[in-house]
Amino acid sequence: MTSIPRTLSWQGELPGRLRMIDQTKLPAEFLEIDCETVESVWEAIRSLRVRGAPAIGVAAGYGTIVGLQGGAYANRSAFDARLTDVTDYLATSRPTAVNLFWALDRLKHVAAAHPDLAPSAMLARLLDEARAIDAEDREMCAAMGRHGASLLPQAGGVLTHCNAGGLATAGDGTALSVIFAAVAAGHDLHVFADETRPLLQGARLTAWECRQRNIPVTVICDSMAALLMRDRKVQAVITGADRIAANGDAANKVGTYSVAMLAQAHGVPFYVAAPSSTFDLPLASGADIPIEERDATEITHGFGRQTVPDGVNVWNPAFDVTPAHLIKAIVTERGVISPVSTESVAAMLS
Amino acid sequence: MTSIPRTLSWQGELPGRLRMIDQTKLPAEFLEIDCETVESVWEAIRSLRVRGAPAIGVAAGYGTIVGLQGGAYANRSAFDARLTDVTDYLATSRPTAVNLFWALDRLKHVAAAHPDLAPSAMLARLLDEARAIDAEDREMCAAMGRHGASLLPQAGGVLTHCNAGGLATAGDGTALSVIFAAVAAGHDLHVFADETRPLLQGARLTAWECRQRNIPVTVICDSMAALLMRDRKVQAVITGADRIAANGDAANKVGTYSVAMLAQAHGVPFYVAAPSSTFDLPLASGADIPIEERDATEITHGFGRQTVPDGVNVWNPAFDVTPAHLIKAIVTERGVISPVSTESVAAMLS
Repeated sequence: MTSIPRTLSWQGELPGRLRMIDQTKLPAEFLEIDCETVESVWEAIRSLRVRGAPAIGVAAGYGTIVGLQGGAYANRSAFDARLTDVTDYLATSRPTAVNLFWALDRLKHVAAAHPDLAPSAMLARLLDEARAIDAEDREMCAAMGRHGASLLPQAGGVLTHCNAGGLATAGDGTALSVIFAAVAAGHDLHVFADETRPLLQGARLTAWECRQRNIPVTVICDSMAALLMRDRKVQAVITGADRIAANGDAANKVGTYSVAMLAQAHGVPFYVAAPSSTFDLPLASGADIPIEERDATEITHGFGRQTVPDGVNVWNPAFDVTPAHLIKAIVTERGVISPVSTESVAAMLS
Repeated sequence: MTSIPRTLSWQGELPGRLRMIDQTKLPAEFLEIDCETVESVWEAIRSLRVRGAPAIGVAAGYGTIVGLQGGAYANRSAFDARLTDVTDYLATSRPTAVNLFWALDRLKHVAAAHPDLAPSAMLARLLDEARAIDAEDREMCAAMGRHGASLLPQAGGVLTHCNAGGLATAGDGTALSVIFAAVAAGHDLHVFADETRPLLQGARLTAWECRQRNIPVTVICDSMAALLMRDRKVQAVITGADRIAANGDAANKVGTYSVAMLAQAHGVPFYVAAPSSTFDLPLASGADIPIEERDATEITHGFGRQTVPDGVNVWNPAFDVTPAHLIKAIVTERGVISPVSTESVAAMLS
């Protein structure tokens, strides 16, 4: 297997830098950027230079360190005030990704649990925690692969939407980790990647990751998935998720709901792969998940050229919610939830 | 209502020119081109400068005249040989559009029915026939609008896919003619236009036509249609068709099958509007309709910028087939076919 560049990594010790692949440049250009200010991390999350719920969580962890380091703190109270400012600020970068809030809360809890540490020692402890989030994420990806691989056919086509690969995590990905693990276990799979308008993460990123691993991959337009299923070219669909409610309803990139519904209509099993940190158990169902609406220019000026006349309205929801009844199984790092229900979700996460 | 530029028109008499809006330039630029060679007409059809089944039929009619005029024919036999060459050549420009073959056959039948006319008189007669195809198409559009308007809600959202508007015909369109007629009759409609990857006819053309007529229109990505329906933002879906089999199965722009299936799952009625020339009765069902596959670069470089990595496969079917059971009614210039079945289609077309 080819060596795959790391999506995110911490460079140096303290002070250090958050290095990441600028995913907005793929596939035409491979560019790594180093973030040395919290504003640059916020911008990178906001602009999708780093994207995918788990990777955003890891970026938020390291981003907090970037925002804290270099300050001259008279005492813990000043340090804690800055920690609050930095985490509040980073929390505004993407309103839908629960991993973002989860990672920020985790750092705040660590700080709250160590009120006696001096600012410099506290910062070192928080960097350890950010690194732990990173390492755990990589292990979670591997575990999802182990648990989910046997769900996929021994041979055949697998459709995925958006990018739930290594580029969406610190490790091998969520949905793609399952595919990669199945291929490693000898399954003969052909990946079909929805291009995933408006930002084309499937065409740009999923196809790039499969190509890096020499896994056969075919890109289609989102509107072709139904025909692909009717022609029996795919035997399974697997996607990631950005936020999952207690009953298993899963928010993911817009278009996932459409794919799940079409899969059901064609008798193709639809799977979700997501770490347990993606679950937001206080939300009883997907109806409570807020849907971020993004800028119209993503649709009207996709990649620099105007494709919609001036003065025309555009609707650009970033996510939709796939109801649990359309999901045959949810693959987590702890195991596979199937059938998907409030009870089975609670049992796996307890 | 604003005066709308003609999609296609014959300029002058004999020799004359086929003038058309170059739809590949919309919406950024409004450009009309004059075709004076049959090769330029072939290229215009092939490159989708003119598109939409009825408009292709009209273009094929005038294109035949362009290909015949200017020749020095010693006798009818020489003229007829050239007519065969020209129509055979034009027939290769788009393999799926039945109106193309229908229009070419119509001219050939007229020629066969008048073996005694001299070449110059025969050419004049064929121009009359091409003009008749044009005029009939405009009247057919108006008739579809009259028959179909009452199917649409008095107030609400209507989703359409691709462009089945005036730009797809010589007149007011097929699906859009129904919408325009409903608005003219006082319905308070908001049009939602699927952008329609890969070539974005919905974003570029349907939105442009609605805007020209001051009808509220919102562009969405194809992957958002399911969410739009779930949110109850559309009360009907209406599209055109490129070819309809005897049982009512309808081939149309890829993605139409997906929209029809999603509409059924959400309890939203799905309608097709198409003139009777779109029906290909020797085809018993949609399984017999060949699906044109188009160039991969429409997907890989669709926005003028590379969006798919080198070396990755692409699947680019131009059409899909919506089975009749998903279609609540087919609006033709003769009336409305509903429910849709081999019997009801035969009854309307007999």
